Amino acid sequence: MAKRKKSTTTKVGLPPGTIDYVGEERTNAIIITAVCFNELDYFEQKYSDYSECIKSLKPGYITWINFDGVHNVKLIEAVGKTYHIHPLTLEDIANTEQRPKIEEFENYIVTFMKMFHTNDDQILQEQLGIILLENLVITFQEPNGGDAFDIIRTRLKTAKGRVRKSGADYLAYALMDAVVDCYFTVIEKCSEQLEKLEEDLLSGSNPKQLVELYELKRQILSLRKQVWPMRDIVNTIIRFDNQLIKEDIIIYLRDLNDHIVRIIDTIESQRDLVSSVMDLHLSTQSNKMNEVMKFLTIISTIFIPATFLAGVYGMNFDNMPEIHSKNGYFVVISIMVLIIAAPLIYFRKKRWI
Amino acid sequence: MAKRKKSTTTKVGLPPGTIDYVGEERTNAIIITAVCFNELDYFEQKYSDYSECIKSLKPGYITWINFDGVHNVKLIEAVGKTYHIHPLTLEDIANTEQRPKIEEFENYIVTFMKMFHTNDDQILQEQLGIILLENLVITFQEPNGGDAFDIIRTRLKTAKGRVRKSGADYLAYALMDAVVDCYFTVIEKCSEQLEKLEEDLLSGSNPKQLVELYELKRQILSLRKQVWPMRDIVNTIIRFDNQLIKEDIIIYLRDLNDHIVRIIDTIESQRDLVSSVMDLHLSTQSNKMNEVMKFLTIISTIFIPATFLAGVYGMNFDNMPEIHSKNGYFVVISIMVLIIAAPLIYFRKKRWI
Amino acid sequence: MAKRKKSTTTKVGLPPGTIDYVGEERTNAIIITAVCFNELDYFEQKYSDYSECIKSLKPGYITWINFDGVHNVKLIEAVGKTYHIHPLTLEDIANTEQRPKIEEFENYIVTFMKMFHTNDDQILQEQLGIILLENLVITFQEPNGGDAFDIIRTRLKTAKGRVRKSGADYLAYALMDAVVDCYFTVIEKCSEQLEKLEEDLLSGSNPKQLVELYELKRQILSLRKQVWPMRDIVNTIIRFDNQLIKEDIIIYLRDLNDHIVRIIDTIESQRDLVSSVMDLHLSTQSNKMNEVMKFLTIISTIFIPATFLAGVYGMNFDNMPEIHSKNGYFVVISIMVLIIAAPLIYFRKKRWI
Amino acid sequence: MAKRKKSTTTKVGLPPGTIDYVGEERTNAIIITAVCFNELDYFEQKYSDYSECIKSLKPGYITWINFDGVHNVKLIEAVGKTYHIHPLTLEDIANTEQRPKIEEFENYIVTFMKMFHTNDDQILQEQLGIILLENLVITFQEPNGGDAFDIIRTRLKTAKGRVRKSGADYLAYALMDAVVDCYFTVIEKCSEQLEKLEEDLLSGSNPKQLVELYELKRQILSLRKQVWPMRDIVNTIIRFDNQLIKEDIIIYLRDLNDHIVRIIDTIESQRDLVSSVMDLHLSTQSNKMNEVMKFLTIISTIFIPATFLAGVYGMNFDNMPEIHSKNGYFVVISIMVLIIAAPLIYFRKKRWI
Amino acid sequence: MAKRKKSTTTKVGLPPGTIDYVGEERTNAIIITAVCFNELDYFEQKYSDYSECIKSLKPGYITWINFDGVHNVKLIEAVGKTYHIHPLTLEDIANTEQRPKIEEFENYIVTFMKMFHTNDDQILQEQLGIILLENLVITFQEPNGGDAFDIIRTRLKTAKGRVRKSGADYLAYALMDAVVDCYFTVIEKCSEQLEKLEEDLLSGSNPKQLVELYELKRQILSLRKQVWPMRDIVNTIIRFDNQLIKEDIIIYLRDLNDHIVRIIDTIESQRDLVSSVMDLHLSTQSNKMNEVMKFLTIISTIFIPATFLAGVYGMNFDNMPEIHSKNGYFVVISIMVLIIAAPLIYFRKKRWI
Repeated sequence: MAKRKKSTTTKVGLPPGTIDYVGEERTNAIIITAVCFNELDYFEQKYSDYSECIKSLKPGYITWINFDGVHNVKLIEAVGKTYHIHPLTLEDIANTEQRPKIEEFENYIVTFMKMFHTNDDQILQEQLGIILLENLVITFQEPNGGDAFDIIRTRLKTAKGRVRKSGADYLAYALMDAVVDCYFTVIEKCSEQLEKLEEDLLSGSNPKQLVELYELKRQILSLRKQVWPMRDIVNTIIRFDNQLIKEDIIIYLRDLNDHIVRIIDTIESQRDLVSSVMDLHLSTQSNKMNEVMKFLTIISTIFIPATFLAGVYGMNFDNMPEIHSKNGYFVVISIMVLIIAAPLIYFRKKRWI
Repeated sequence: MAKRKKSTTTKVGLPPGTIDYVGEERTNAIIITAVCFNELDYFEQKYSDYSECIKSLKPGYITWINFDGVHNVKLIEAVGKTYHIHPLTLEDIANTEQRPKIEEFENYIVTFMKMFHTNDDQILQEQLGIILLENLVITFQEPNGGDAFDIIRTRLKTAKGRVRKSGADYLAYALMDAVVDCYFTVIEKCSEQLEKLEEDLLSGSNPKQLVELYELKRQILSLRKQVWPMRDIVNTIIRFDNQLIKEDIIIYLRDLNDHIVRIIDTIESQRDLVSSVMDLHLSTQSNKMNEVMKFLTIISTIFIPATFLAGVYGMNFDNMPEIHSKNGYFVVISIMVLIIAAPLIYFRKKRWI
Repeated sequence: MAKRKKSTTTKVGLPPGTIDYVGEERTNAIIITAVCFNELDYFEQKYSDYSECIKSLKPGYITWINFDGVHNVKLIEAVGKTYHIHPLTLEDIANTEQRPKIEEFENYIVTFMKMFHTNDDQILQEQLGIILLENLVITFQEPNGGDAFDIIRTRLKTAKGRVRKSGADYLAYALMDAVVDCYFTVIEKCSEQLEKLEEDLLSGSNPKQLVELYELKRQILSLRKQVWPMRDIVNTIIRFDNQLIKEDIIIYLRDLNDHIVRIIDTIESQRDLVSSVMDLHLSTQSNKMNEVMKFLTIISTIFIPATFLAGVYGMNFDNMPEIHSKNGYFVVISIMVLIIAAPLIYFRKKRWI
Repeated sequence: MAKRKKSTTTKVGLPPGTIDYVGEERTNAIIITAVCFNELDYFEQKYSDYSECIKSLKPGYITWINFDGVHNVKLIEAVGKTYHIHPLTLEDIANTEQRPKIEEFENYIVTFMKMFHTNDDQILQEQLGIILLENLVITFQEPNGGDAFDIIRTRLKTAKGRVRKSGADYLAYALMDAVVDCYFTVIEKCSEQLEKLEEDLLSGSNPKQLVELYELKRQILSLRKQVWPMRDIVNTIIRFDNQLIKEDIIIYLRDLNDHIVRIIDTIESQRDLVSSVMDLHLSTQSNKMNEVMKFLTIISTIFIPATFLAGVYGMNFDNMPEIHSKNGYFVVISIMVLIIAAPLIYFRKKRWI
Repeated sequence: MAKRKKSTTTKVGLPPGTIDYVGEERTNAIIITAVCFNELDYFEQKYSDYSECIKSLKPGYITWINFDGVHNVKLIEAVGKTYHIHPLTLEDIANTEQRPKIEEFENYIVTFMKMFHTNDDQILQEQLGIILLENLVITFQEPNGGDAFDIIRTRLKTAKGRVRKSGADYLAYALMDAVVDCYFTVIEKCSEQLEKLEEDLLSGSNPKQLVELYELKRQILSLRKQVWPMRDIVNTIIRFDNQLIKEDIIIYLRDLNDHIVRIIDTIESQRDLVSSVMDLHLSTQSNKMNEVMKFLTIISTIFIPATFLAGVYGMNFDNMPEIHSKNGYFVVISIMVLIIAAPLIYFRKKRWI
């Protein structure tokens, strides 16, 4: 990605299950957004204190708690304690370098994925952890300006779509769907960039564009790394025989799977095209070089021999009979014209000019 | 494809199941063609009003309703209501950027694929959605001039072939078969183009042809993206245990599968050949460059030393003993001939000339 | 393949099961060769009329009918009628662009494959369809001079080998085995060509050989396309639970499968080697170019500065003090020798010479 | 790896099960570290004598015996005798060129893997063999300075984490986890190196960096060879139905598997990027060459023709009418200016300058 | 392989099961070595007559008969008759171009593999066929100097290792193990060669080394072709449920499988490295070329314009005012110095020098 994280001091040797924040340094307070809803009611409240938030939750409602940061290890531990989350899951939440994955535990299902935000020329990546419990969804996201879920909150509030009538599983699906929709935006941006670079590289030959193309390839590879495992995630959920996932959600997950496959297809073609553009550029360069060399060869071939002849008659020997002949100069000039013309005819024959 | 669609404003954040037309802007009315037939009768009628069309359908007949456009969201919703089509299917119908796929619902099977039309140099692509219900086939196509189905209507009308005697499943198969037949035409066009570019690139070195080759590769990749999933579609239908698909259709689907595999094979070889042609071109260029450079080197090597010698005796020093010797000029000329001849012998030995 | 078929007017839109000859235009009569044999007897007869042929067949014998062409649609239809062959099979027989495949029907098994004949430099390809019924084998081949089956007829006649004692399934196997044996010949030819091109490309740099290498790659790709599906065919037969295939044939089919895998292995290495040769050639070219350029650079570097110096003292200024000094000429000549020698020492150090 | 082992005299023809040390020559004594612990107690002792060590082990405790070298064949045999280890396992322990693998025997499970240590610029690789028996873990490692396990001993001693409360299986897992954590360090080092080389290669063109890039690729390939089989190892343990592996360990192994997959993902992208950097470098080089050639061509084209003209009027013919004309010199100078200016205009048009 | 066999006249059209020697021409007598042993006794005898050998075999012993050549078709037929070997197996024995494979028959298991011998620079390949019957192992090898089995005979004789106490299945395993051990030697040789070529290609640029690298690739590909199927062979034996293979052999076969996988891993990395070396060489060449071209361009750019100026003042026009000015010469020399210095400053800026 354009903005590379600083080498994270990976926690070599720490016992597994130790919650240790891995990511950019952050100190800001984590905003907790709690949403409780059922078919009739909708409550939304922002908290900065976890215990306060927990107290205010309404039993019997579908609840969604969103944490706007994962750098507060104590907070994560507290959540783990409240909802009996396994230490390994808590460790994964705090580690923002997680590979997209899904895991089934006794009382919950947890999935990790990456969200992408395009910001000017940069593509920002932030980790999202979704924990699905009975009538409860807990999400942990990095605070990179992630407003991808605002739209879902609005949908919940205005009761538009199925999302209010369905359970926590549909809400979790809706969140994943929103994440995958973001991928389309990023991929479209890549496509645009690729098309622009294509055009530029084929007309001019700015070496900067080569580097940009390489950066694009990096981006595409990075996206690929995040999207491929998504497929397994969705397929795993579909095959799960878990009471947290209701039967009527499957069709939506299949639709989500289709979207992911479409993204993968596009990424694979883009990858292929980037290589092709590079090859094409190389061929074009080679063509241009050929032309330049031909030009140089033609000019040199025409004038070097004639210049030699001029040099010969510029020598100062006393005894140079031709020099004193009346027509010597004109004969030599004629010979020079011939020497100049001969390669031109040769090159024409060889189709160089 | 040659004509690229403008970046479609993808519907990030819209709730799943929201029908939203994605594709080129269109405002023209959608023509509905309804065909009712059985072994004895055949009726065909064009409508621009959906309710009118519905009323005129004949119960007990096999019915085929074709919509010549998917940009009218309300119309799609109306169809969904009449035949109990799932909102996700309706959403897919309106989204022309769909990946080829098949889905089984309680009361119907729906499949999406791309049709290709060659139009002069361009290859146009339009989406086709086929919904197979009990005794009913509903098709949605983009109005790019798609006349691929006229031939099937003619076959129905003139009762040629099995199509009149069989059910809706055979009709759906016949439509898919017609689509796949179009792929052969497109692939043949690509083959022709490839052969032409091959010849051109190996003789001359027009940089335009390189770009054309690249465009061809793009096209082949795009075709590939559409054809590969077709294989899964047909295999999925064959494995379906659905009452809508009768046993005796399977053999036809297997035949269709063979066609698709043949197309995939050809696409894969073409892809391989495009890369080979590019490599070959690069090698040829390198060969040519070598020849040009050899030529330049030979000419330079022959004349530069001799010219230097001429320069020496062109100097105006007062005291240059050789200059005044009687045979100096002739001796120097002889040396020059040697200087010119020596590299020629050397190059001959090295097999450069 | 060397001799490319003209773009066949593919039968877009024709109903499936329509028999339509696809291939080179032909009008010659189709020769029908009928062979009836059992352990004791052997009859062989050539016919040009199908009904006559059918009448003469001996019941209770193993029968093999070979058609020397597939361009007579009516004849194929007649065969279909006699032996209850499915219209889709008849369609495939007439379409010589078939992909190798096997299909099981109620009363017969049909398989299509390509035979290869080397003819001078060309590799000719012709389609073979084998239909295996109860005690009957029907073969359809294109009349490209196919004498691959003569040897089997001879074997049948002279009762050499197992073929006379076994049933129709062994005969069908023997035919397939003969086809696969032909592949070895073709592959050997490719290997020879590859070795020759290798040698040529590494010594000289004839651009024609590059094109030949490319043609060879084309051929190898085309072969590959035909041989890969053969593997599936044989494996499918082995797994068939069909009474037409007797148990004791399986071991022979496994042997056949081994041969096919060996051919595939060889094709894959050849494909790899062709790419390597191309890369190697490119590297060699680059090496040669480097040498040529070094030579040019050395010659230029040696003489251009010295020539410049000669030019300076060839100027005609009135006031050039050095010119009139007694030893000026000899000093300048010494300097020139230095100017010429210096780069030689430099290049020696850089290991250019 | 940076430091390549000397060609080990592989033991061709020795009977299987013959214990024969394969690796760098070593003669130092092997240090044996025995750790006995349960939830309450912790004992740690270093021995150089095996029999002494065995005697001091405490029954009823979880025991971990670590051998700091595998070059003492007799010692390995003694261990094999004490704990009934199969000769093939003993042979594998002594052969440090082992492929990572896992094997299940009647009374124990044995796994081999490679540990990596970064030491300045070098990446050192040492083999680790872990044998898991009932309440006992035996580890064999090469003495390359491996302090990777100190941290685990400290964890055991200070009773931090789950490791003290769990059985031998958890200890074995903790060791494997520590090994995999080391991979992250090595991969991060590779990433850093790759990024540095990237930058260097795209700005300058030091041929040394190309070789470094190649060395990096070698390293990545070597890592890859060691990490890929790790995945199978962990998956195999998960699927094992062995009483030595308790149920509640599985979740930790799944976490370990995730880490390995993450490492594999990163290695694969790095591999892809190394190729891309090489391609990019080639393109950049080609671009630069183009520029150099253009420059040379421009300079030559400008001055060679004008120099020829100067040469013509430097000839010493008696009869050269132009020479004596009053304005001849100025006319010729003007022509020269034209000759110099013309190509400049031409090149500007061609966008070379 | 270094020494390529002459194109073997493949036996197109021969009936399957026909024993026909395919390989280098040979006429020497085949030496038969019979070994009979049990836990107590060991007999070894060389014969040139088969019937004599058969008579001398000791019933109740484990017997191993080794044939030192497969070019005597009659001998193979005789062996087939004695032990009821299927004609297809006999055919495979005589065909030395066999692909490594394993086949299970009613009364025996047969496997074919290639042995490799390094002989100076060449790698010789010879086919080995192992037939495992009840208490009997028959081996057929080509007489290329194969002493790989001497070591096993010695082990049998001196009763070292398990081999004497075990049955015929362990003997067959020991033979396969010896063959696989040879692969390690060959691979090590390839590694050495690769490392040497690497070094050479990166320092100098001898085109011969490129060809050697290509030859090495050929060798690696050929090895690969032989080793990959070995994996299937061993896995097939492990899965066999055949009384000829006893349970306690499986663990040794798993060990053998590990060795094969290790060899495959190494081959795959070598293949990858060969391509990388070639790419690296290409890049290095391109770098060198760039340097050469820069040098030429610098020299030319410096002197060509100054030489032109010298040429101008070397013209012989009567009316050249500058020539007669007192300081003209010194002014021109100063200008020349400037012309020479300017590009040097420019190149320094561009970092060319």
